[in-house]
Amino acid sequence: MSRDRLIYLPLGGAGEIGMNAYVYGYGPEGKERLILVDLGIAFPDMDTTPGVDIILPDVSWLMDKLDRLEAVFVTHAHEDHVGGIGHLHGRLGGPAVHCRRFTANHARRKLKEQGHDERAVVVSEPWPAQVEAGPFKVGFLPISHSIPESSALVIDTPAGRIVHTGDFKIDLVPVLGEAFDADSFREVAKGGVRALVCDSTNVFNKHEGRSESLVGPNIRELVAGSKGMFVATTFASNVARLVSLARAGEAAGRSICLMGRAMRRMTEAAVEEGILTDFPKTVSPEDAASLPRENLMLIVTGSQGERRAASAQLSQGKYFGMEMREGDTFLFSSKTIPGNEKEVARIMNAFSEMGVDVVTDDDGLFHVSGHANRPDLETMHALVDPASVIPMHGEHRHLREHARLARSLGREGVVAPNGTMLDLAGNKPTVIDRVETGRTYLDGSTLVGQFDGVVRDRIRMALNGHAVVAVMVEDDDQIMEEAWVSLRGLPESGRAGRDLAEEMERELGQRLGRVDTRTAGDDDALEALIKKAVHQVAQEEIGKRPEVTVLITRLASE
Amino acid sequence: MSRDRLIYLPLGGAGEIGMNAYVYGYGPEGKERLILVDLGIAFPDMDTTPGVDIILPDVSWLMDKLDRLEAVFVTHAHEDHVGGIGHLHGRLGGPAVHCRRFTANHARRKLKEQGHDERAVVVSEPWPAQVEAGPFKVGFLPISHSIPESSALVIDTPAGRIVHTGDFKIDLVPVLGEAFDADSFREVAKGGVRALVCDSTNVFNKHEGRSESLVGPNIRELVAGSKGMFVATTFASNVARLVSLARAGEAAGRSICLMGRAMRRMTEAAVEEGILTDFPKTVSPEDAASLPRENLMLIVTGSQGERRAASAQLSQGKYFGMEMREGDTFLFSSKTIPGNEKEVARIMNAFSEMGVDVVTDDDGLFHVSGHANRPDLETMHALVDPASVIPMHGEHRHLREHARLARSLGREGVVAPNGTMLDLAGNKPTVIDRVETGRTYLDGSTLVGQFDGVVRDRIRMALNGHAVVAVMVEDDDQIMEEAWVSLRGLPESGRAGRDLAEEMERELGQRLGRVDTRTAGDDDALEALIKKAVHQVAQEEIGKRPEVTVLITRLASE
Repeated sequence: MSRDRLIYLPLGGAGEIGMNAYVYGYGPEGKERLILVDLGIAFPDMDTTPGVDIILPDVSWLMDKLDRLEAVFVTHAHEDHVGGIGHLHGRLGGPAVHCRRFTANHARRKLKEQGHDERAVVVSEPWPAQVEAGPFKVGFLPISHSIPESSALVIDTPAGRIVHTGDFKIDLVPVLGEAFDADSFREVAKGGVRALVCDSTNVFNKHEGRSESLVGPNIRELVAGSKGMFVATTFASNVARLVSLARAGEAAGRSICLMGRAMRRMTEAAVEEGILTDFPKTVSPEDAASLPRENLMLIVTGSQGERRAASAQLSQGKYFGMEMREGDTFLFSSKTIPGNEKEVARIMNAFSEMGVDVVTDDDGLFHVSGHANRPDLETMHALVDPASVIPMHGEHRHLREHARLARSLGREGVVAPNGTMLDLAGNKPTVIDRVETGRTYLDGSTLVGQFDGVVRDRIRMALNGHAVVAVMVEDDDQIMEEAWVSLRGLPESGRAGRDLAEEMERELGQRLGRVDTRTAGDDDALEALIKKAVHQVAQEEIGKRPEVTVLITRLASE
Repeated sequence: MSRDRLIYLPLGGAGEIGMNAYVYGYGPEGKERLILVDLGIAFPDMDTTPGVDIILPDVSWLMDKLDRLEAVFVTHAHEDHVGGIGHLHGRLGGPAVHCRRFTANHARRKLKEQGHDERAVVVSEPWPAQVEAGPFKVGFLPISHSIPESSALVIDTPAGRIVHTGDFKIDLVPVLGEAFDADSFREVAKGGVRALVCDSTNVFNKHEGRSESLVGPNIRELVAGSKGMFVATTFASNVARLVSLARAGEAAGRSICLMGRAMRRMTEAAVEEGILTDFPKTVSPEDAASLPRENLMLIVTGSQGERRAASAQLSQGKYFGMEMREGDTFLFSSKTIPGNEKEVARIMNAFSEMGVDVVTDDDGLFHVSGHANRPDLETMHALVDPASVIPMHGEHRHLREHARLARSLGREGVVAPNGTMLDLAGNKPTVIDRVETGRTYLDGSTLVGQFDGVVRDRIRMALNGHAVVAVMVEDDDQIMEEAWVSLRGLPESGRAGRDLAEEMERELGQRLGRVDTRTAGDDDALEALIKKAVHQVAQEEIGKRPEVTVLITRLASE
């Protein structure tokens, strides 16, 4: 009889920063009982996923194994860890979702928004409490990060203990919530840890990480020296930062106004769960508008330049009655996530045109990262002292660098990108399967597969424009010699100023007039002929090759 | 009689980094004789300009003043300064294009490629030589940058002297070509300078700029310590860097192979113009393929992750017979221009998957900027000691910061973004007009205006998908009750798995069956009715609002 397997299978998050979803399993081959750690989303962009609302991990692999799925565990409330709960809970057969109180607040809302029963969410107390899920015992070990109640998971199995860090940094003075407690990790490590599954985001940053507590004094000084209205943006989920910002405003005698939906949601959740107890009093945007601007501090969403968020709105003009003016200060208490540079710069330039002073983390220590840098990863490896390190939460290059780091420190380091199934039960992790993984797009209200062609067609229309042709064929396969052409995303006129659609109609008229009955009776042949003609005219007139849709109407005899 | 004006009018480059085009004029109001400094392009992106090939400044303002345009002067051969010459030379009435030898080599090729007479390009010797152009005398004053023969322009007018820096850095040891010569600027400044029109790119960088000569030794050490094939990418136009790279390869006993069209063009031009005299011998890709990889160094295009360039191709598989393998090294001897982060990361991750070691300027001093940092700008202000500083070559925030810097140093600093016409003849620069400026898109072979709606429609199709509907109306305004729907960039099926196009056709069939003769006879009314129906079904089934094109075919009686 073959021994039981302890499997690790990332479905998302290992090979990208986003949409985390890690499967663990224990049992005989093909009968492993499963748990899922995190179920996050990633965000679309115009380059690769235009029109898509959110990107979810593809959980197809789990679909025929739902009877073996014991539960879902969520490490913390960031969207790339909890954001998929609402959209995928139903498909996963409605499993129990275990998390800590603050995370649960968000998970419940997400289930509710998608019409699921929020009672699937089970609040777990922190370690040493443990949740039993089949052969697993899972404990939430508090760890510092940039959102309240982040937890590493201590996953006990008959084959040994795994520590799954979730996202983390080593912060001894996190301003809000639990400080990093090295002792708790030492304690957990005592009996030996088979594998440390570990955050890799900042592996390329060689400096020691900086504490959240370093940011407050700088912000306080900046606010104290500002004259007009002071506006700050940060990640809404960074409740500690919101506290630092608000206290800086309060110290300068300013009234605090929170703007943007996420900002209000996060603080509400933090208050509801007893995390935020002494947040400075805030005023509503309506009341704020009537206060002298030098007595005001707005804390707003949109640090990444998101078009509909408060920052972008304020850079365009009035937002809930508030308006930026010359002499105001706008602080990005955030970093720009790679890919968002242009959107953020657009806001900065708009503020520059208004005469608003923009301050960023380039101008001083107004932001610290929520992730462990390289020296902090070394500390974590040393504390937990696992047999193997399995890097996660990173692009491929991060995983590879992190595995190298582990090896350089004398431990096994395994690069296991999405779809790599490892068995952790043996002497060292071994790859036992490669599973097809991918992305699922939430597009409006439907889920679209990555390879369905929907997004590909959108990209093609955006690059090439779209020519639409309607032709009619009479019942005796006589084509009406007129074709109707309509263009979208293409210039109206071509090289010599001629109307492009008319040129196409003229050319089509000529060609259709010469078509034999067989071609006229064959949709595919007719379509090919029409596309060819459209492409030829487009090439001559505008030097492009548009997408072409042909609508053939066949007239039935009456 | 009013005095003559000395006007400055940026049509591009002041408010963005790209498509530089600065008009100077001198003479009585409305009769100023004009020169144009630089005529560059900007590069499109998927977010704002999908499908566009290049972005040109809108030169409409010049169109009714071509008889007053004396000449074009080009400061250096970067695309954002010379790239528009070929596309706009004809529209500008074929003016003389003055530049130095290396720049002329590029300008001529660009004219030729667009079928213009390359003899319009006039080679100018460097300062103290001057070119007369109407009331202007213009001299090319050598200045260090990241491409050979960059020049500041010394623009003499009856109202005084202007120094237009072009792009520059202060590099005393530029490896190739002319070192920064402070004396020449002091000399030029002697009789007084009315205005310094000055590069603003790196105004936010507080450190002194670093010399190109610092890069070579680091590259040499890196190459010497590498085992497999060594591949480096950089900006092809940085000929000094190519020399540093090639020499490092040669020193390590490697054969040098240049890959990518721009790489070959730039080195050819540099050889033709006598700038590159002792470049190490290169081998062709064909010959390279037969050499042991540890004896090879490739220098390739695509440092910004451009999809068709050599770097991206190598990250995808074979390129001209060459292929990356585990143990090879890939050096980005470049920085990632904001907005290109994702494309560059994609390449890094692909190499990571192959086991290739990727080295970037984060790992050591393998790149230096070609632009003056803040302390270098201060040096330039001090050297030229102008009455006013007019920042250019920057986004609005750069211009504003640079003007502030000038003021902090006791000089007039004027923010004049694109379209701001200044008169420089008086005591201090005054804004005398605001001119409509914008962007023109080269799209395939035609020029498309920024506000023509073409690109807007592409973006909408990309975000929303496109539903196409064909209906027929008989000559008595009886609608055929069938409608044909074709979808692009939309999911095939909706909420309940129903075929989306069929659902729309069914709904349209019902509504069209109830249409009265008046609506049927009115294209606009009919189209509105159809769009409404399509939007409604789409909303219900997929939660989206697609773009809709309606093709109405009216059957004439026979």
